[in-house]
Parts: sequence; structure tokens; C-alpha cells
Amino acid sequence: MIDETFLRVRYSETDQMGIVYYANYFVWMEVGRTNLIRNFGITYKELEEKGFLLPVVYTSARFISPAYYDDEIVVQSALIEMTKTKLSIGYRIFRITSQDKRELVCVGLSDLVFLDKETRRIVRAPEFFVNAVKIQKSPEYDKFIEDIQKILKY
Amino acid sequence: MIDETFLRVRYSETDQMGIVYYANYFVWMEVGRTNLIRNFGITYKELEEKGFLLPVVYTSARFISPAYYDDEIVVQSALIEMTKTKLSIGYRIFRITSQDKRELVCVGLSDLVFLDKETRRIVRAPEFFVNAVKIQKSPEYDKFIEDIQKILKY
Amino acid sequence: MIDETFLRVRYSETDQMGIVYYANYFVWMEVGRTNLIRNFGITYKELEEKGFLLPVVYTSARFISPAYYDDEIVVQSALIEMTKTKLSIGYRIFRITSQDKRELVCVGLSDLVFLDKETRRIVRAPEFFVNAVKIQKSPEYDKFIEDIQKILKY
Amino acid sequence: MIDETFLRVRYSETDQMGIVYYANYFVWMEVGRTNLIRNFGITYKELEEKGFLLPVVYTSARFISPAYYDDEIVVQSALIEMTKTKLSIGYRIFRITSQDKRELVCVGLSDLVFLDKETRRIVRAPEFFVNAVKIQKSPEYDKFIEDIQKILKY
Repeated sequence: MIDETFLRVRYSETDQMGIVYYANYFVWMEVGRTNLIRNFGITYKELEEKGFLLPVVYTSARFISPAYYDDEIVVQSALIEMTKTKLSIGYRIFRITSQDKRELVCVGLSDLVFLDKETRRIVRAPEFFVNAVKIQKSPEYDKFIEDIQKILKY
Repeated sequence: MIDETFLRVRYSETDQMGIVYYANYFVWMEVGRTNLIRNFGITYKELEEKGFLLPVVYTSARFISPAYYDDEIVVQSALIEMTKTKLSIGYRIFRITSQDKRELVCVGLSDLVFLDKETRRIVRAPEFFVNAVKIQKSPEYDKFIEDIQKILKY
Repeated sequence: MIDETFLRVRYSETDQMGIVYYANYFVWMEVGRTNLIRNFGITYKELEEKGFLLPVVYTSARFISPAYYDDEIVVQSALIEMTKTKLSIGYRIFRITSQDKRELVCVGLSDLVFLDKETRRIVRAPEFFVNAVKIQKSPEYDKFIEDIQKILKY
Repeated sequence: MIDETFLRVRYSETDQMGIVYYANYFVWMEVGRTNLIRNFGITYKELEEKGFLLPVVYTSARFISPAYYDDEIVVQSALIEMTKTKLSIGYRIFRITSQDKRELVCVGLSDLVFLDKETRRIVRAPEFFVNAVKIQKSPEYDKFIEDIQKILKY
């Protein structure tokens, strides 16, 4: 499944180059993965309430083209891989230039690990999470993964 | 006592007007008051460790002149008033334009209340805080307070 | 007219108190007023393209109750006053606690002035803006203004 | 040369996990590289005034250990590579845990390209920049590069 989260560029997200400041793309990736997880029927909020944290341990992004103030943005997020303790999530971020046109502005990746909220140690993903989260293959999904790999060269 | 905290404008703090985005001044005020409290011999961090929170309940700012990327900034903070449960802190923020010249860019005010970290209810300021924090009058301090009142018109 | 803009609290907007960091409310007010102006048939982006800037010269906010990660937020914005060179905009910010319940979390105000983009001097609001922007009185609007005045005590 | 930039964690930089929010490390890297360039005798500000922009086109970071509110942080930045149009800068970020102890919290990398400010097209690095910026090898520098490569696995 590829989640699509829509947002609009805030004035606060621009810098004096007149474009979106690069660190904000990582905020958008977080907004995207929050919704991706929500689509699996779990909220990140619940996960914390049940005693788990899911911090980012690695992230990367390639910035292809700038995004501008007031642009409509779509953040595509999809699960790339899941191990016993870790999630890899990929992102393609577009600006919507017309009703049916999208320009790719950024491609990213983030690895997150499960931590016990109390001990702050790495733990296995809880069973309710593992059961809910599934990678559903599709031609669209394969293209997504290929894009992430090709563009990020990871 | 008037604390002076020095910082330099980050690229991330600018917006597409080419100046510091207004909400960042409130971040700088927080940096200033952290150091003001440190000067009283207490750290805000300790305060939290001892079970207190000190959230902002009211704030205001007048923006007089813009600040720019890479500017050296000085945030002056001083305690305006302290009641049993509340602190009022005032701020004058300058950009340093030459070795001995400063241009006033912003004047601000914030009210903070003491909360119990567990119950999240308003509580009296702890004794160790009350004993440490003192308003020391001086002509410089009086001018500071007058500026805040006159410019903010509060 | 009272504009309503909906957003969801981002993880990046929280702080270690577990609530929304206070400076972020000023970002939300900016998101709200962007949409308020859009509803008048103008975009802030156009305004800049036509040679005007609209920086904030004064702002204040009272924080009544905290907002939390993943909360659904509604930012209500309305024009309070318009002079030849200045706009005053008021805000009521709520968290949506159930389908038909809202809890007031913040009340704010901001004054913005028209600047010429080149000279950065205060100028009169352009005619196309003055003609588009109208205060439409209604009982709901009067209550809004009353709330802002009473809660901010300005 | 390895530049060391010191900063202190701001309250605004924490999130509800009680640690520094991951996107803020990219802001710190930018603060680090600003000073790295300053040490070469150029300011990034001048670069823009002379008609160049230097946006990030790729970045990555590995988060090894958390940083906390009020921590003293040192951002080490060094030039890894310079081509005709691109700079690669590496970062090691530490929290200072005692007078002579540092704990590694993050390792990062960023690639920046030179753009003409008007056309926004990729251009060669200006001569004054090329002449000023030099990679000075040293055992310390070699260890730095090795760390970045090993930890980021790029």
C-alpha cells in the first residue's frame, strides 16, 4: 500500500532562497508515515500509549526540484521492509502543478526501530503491529521501490 | 538583573521575505529565559526533574525591525513580576550592527505558570525557586521595564 | 466571515512536556490567515507577486489548555479591523475532542502591515485587496470578537 | 580542517519522546557548515550577495544516541569532497557529557550544489570560493572521513 498524504506549504517552511527549507521534508515524511501507519489500523499515538517508541535511526533524502510557498504537496509513503525490530519506510514527495500533473520534488527513506518506552532499549515489534502491517505488492508498489532505490542509490 | 544571551540567525529561521520568520522570536525568548533562570543558580532542567513544569500561558511581541540571516543577535531577558504561581518575563531583542551598535528588532513578554508535572495543575512556585529568583532594581532595569511597557502597550 | 482551517498536530510540533510547543501556535495562525485571505478571493502569494509584503508587526496569544500530538485542530480566523495600511486578525484555536465537541486551546491576535516589496516601506493596502476584504457582521462574528477581546484583554 | 561549532539544545528542539526531534539535526548541520565556510574566509551570506545559492541536493544521517534538552552539543563539520559544481560535507555531532567527554549522537552527510541565483541553474563554483576552500589532510581528518563512511555506509 502506498499512502498519500496531502498538505500545503506553510510560509514558515520557506527560507530566504524562496523555497522550502530542506529539513522540513523530514517533517513531512513523519506526517506521511503517521498516516501510513494509521491506514494499517493502528495509530502511532496508540503505539506510544502501549509502551513503545519508534524513533528514526537513519534517514536520507534526495532533493530533485524545489517546492514553493502555498504549493499543494502529496507525500507518498510505503513500507519497504520490516524486520523483527525495525521498519524501513520510503517516500516520494510531489508538488501538484495542475489537476492531473505532479512534479517529483524529493525522494526519501527512513529506518525506525521499536523501543521499550521505559527502558529505551530496542525490542521486537509488538504482535498487534506485526499482524496489522503488511506489504502488499503491486506494479505500482514495485515502481515505487525501484524509484526509491534508483534515486537514493542506497 | 538583565540577562544577555547571544545567538546567530540560522538559515532555517529565515523565510521567503528574506527575514527572520516571526514565530522564531518566541523560540529565542525561550532561549533567553532559560539562561536568565540559569543565572539565578537554577536550571529549567532541574525544575522539571524536581516535578515542576513552567509552560507559557500568555505571550506577546512587537516586531520593530527585521533581523537577517547570519546576524548576531542579543536577547535581553529580565524578570518583570513574580506572584505565587506565575512569572512575567520581558525581552528586548537586538541585532548587533557593529562592535558597539545594536538595533532593536523585537520587544516581548511572556507569562509562565508553575504546574505539578504529574497532575498538570497550577501550584505555588517551589521555595528553592522563590529564594533564588530576585528582582534587582537599577536604572538600567527600570529603563528595560519602561521600554517593554511603552512598546508593548500592555 | 470566520474562516475555519483544519490541521492535525505533527510530532515535530510537540515538546518534551508532551504538548504542542507554544511558538507553533503562531505558525498555525499564519496557516489560518492564509486561508482567510484566500476566502476573500485573493492569495497571499499573489499579493507578493504584485509587489506587496504583509509582515506581522504585533502578535499575542493566550494559551488556555494544551493540544496534543495527533489532535485534530481547527483554527478560526477573522478580520477584526482594517485601516489604510494595517490588518488586525483574530484567532480562536480549538482541539476537536469528538465529532461535535471542541475545546478552546488558544486565542490570538496579529497585526500586519502592507509593505512595498522593493522599498520595504509601509504603503497603503492595494485597491484590489481593499475591495475584496470585507468584515461581515453576524452574531457569531460579534461573539468571536468579544472572545478575543475578553480573553486577550487587549 | 574540522570545524567545531558549539550550541545548546533548545526546548523547541525536543519532542514528546523527551529527546531532540530528528529533523533538527539537519538544522544543526547547516549551522555547522555555515561556520566551516566562515573558517575558509568566506561567508555563505557573501556567496548569496555575489549571486550564488548553495542548496542541499542530498543528505543523510544516522542517529546513534539521543540528545536532550539543555545538552551542550558540538557539531564537527569537514569538507569531504569538492567537484566543479558540488560540495560534500560530513558531520559528527556529539553531546558533551563532562569537561573532557563527548558522546557521539549523530553522523551526517550533505551534498550541496552551486546555483546561479537568477537562473537557478547549476554553475561552477566561483573562483574565489575554489581558491579559499581546501581539504587539509591530517590523521584526525582521515579518522573523521572513515567514521562518516563506516557509520553512514555510503
